[in-house]
Amino acid sequence: MTGTLFGLGIGPGDPELITLKAHRILTRVSVIAFPAPERGPSLARRIVAPHLNGTQREIAIRMPLEAGRFPAPEIYDNAAREIAAVLDAGTDVAALCEGDPFLYGSFAYLFARLSTTHRVEVVPGVSSLTAAAARAGRPLALKNEVLTVVPAPLPDEAIAARLQGRDAAVILKLGRHVGRVRALLGQLGRAADARYVEHATMASEQIAGLDEAPDPAPYFSLILVPARP
Amino acid sequence: MTGTLFGLGIGPGDPELITLKAHRILTRVSVIAFPAPERGPSLARRIVAPHLNGTQREIAIRMPLEAGRFPAPEIYDNAAREIAAVLDAGTDVAALCEGDPFLYGSFAYLFARLSTTHRVEVVPGVSSLTAAAARAGRPLALKNEVLTVVPAPLPDEAIAARLQGRDAAVILKLGRHVGRVRALLGQLGRAADARYVEHATMASEQIAGLDEAPDPAPYFSLILVPARP
Repeated sequence: MTGTLFGLGIGPGDPELITLKAHRILTRVSVIAFPAPERGPSLARRIVAPHLNGTQREIAIRMPLEAGRFPAPEIYDNAAREIAAVLDAGTDVAALCEGDPFLYGSFAYLFARLSTTHRVEVVPGVSSLTAAAARAGRPLALKNEVLTVVPAPLPDEAIAARLQGRDAAVILKLGRHVGRVRALLGQLGRAADARYVEHATMASEQIAGLDEAPDPAPYFSLILVPARP
Repeated sequence: MTGTLFGLGIGPGDPELITLKAHRILTRVSVIAFPAPERGPSLARRIVAPHLNGTQREIAIRMPLEAGRFPAPEIYDNAAREIAAVLDAGTDVAALCEGDPFLYGSFAYLFARLSTTHRVEVVPGVSSLTAAAARAGRPLALKNEVLTVVPAPLPDEAIAARLQGRDAAVILKLGRHVGRVRALLGQLGRAADARYVEHATMASEQIAGLDEAPDPAPYFSLILVPARP
């Protein structure tokens, strides 16, 4: 019997915003895997640290974690190989995913490599989008409003095209793009009601108007743009 | 000391997909409030039923719960008044919200009425969007893809405008609009890769290609449209 790979959504940062299901799986598996920067500690591991018992084998998947840079396919190839060996030995693995595994998460690349050959179960999690909205006291979308999620590294024209109408929007992955996006929102007349949210639900959380957003902003930051009335 | 109103995201349907935080609050408050149809049982209450101890006072907020119909403001006015009286007596209230409170949830209307006069805390939850993606094995968005969330009751032109490009999309609140939306996706060349998901993570879950989607579909159903390569 081969093991199961769980793609565990661990939520936006507050360790209490993990689901009962992810918590149950996390505390029962004997191997966890998680994305980690090329050097230094993993944010995903830090989020679940209060729930770990210290006996689990840990597979850190080292990769570049900056806005606009994507890890080389070989990084996922190697991680998938290492995880497959554990599964083939009959052991379950929980891959930790900040927020939700299938919303801009790197788990999709492990899923693509392993789901045809192994049992893989995806456990959805609370995303940073709804966590930011909750913390800022700003509903994301109501009634029949359209909500568009736009990565900030896209070109100006691509961002503007999604913000020209009345749709609500969340602009993600700000990083060094925060000044550009702020200027663009100003030109489109959508800056006044927008809110900047960084590290929603973490101890380092910041919520501010666009004027006070740091430049550059961290990778885990976003701008909430309400629908135009 | 007045009480706190908690807007509790209770997740998409599986009772185990509630967060540890929502579970803690749910099991400690003495009053819960939840949306319920004009007649019959509440889905939100059913989702959390395994976690209730049977001693809590329950406030059912009766309202029309069909795609395209929105409750009259008086329904929220009355519910807010009833909840405010409990809070003013120093008792906390947990308002149950399917999925996430601020993503197309009716909690936004209680929040608008009570957050300026009372302590209100919003606890984000797992949304049906990411739950459907997890269950269908379909990532919602990768890298710098744009993701657009479109309510099906919108006119054809409004839906088509968001689906003409390459963006990934989720089409929500299908109800009696499923045939219309299916035809539209066909015309736009986006039907083949789309997946229909109903009641994600519930016992009644259905996942199918667009051809097999029921017509009409339930309110809690959606179509996942992947980004065009």
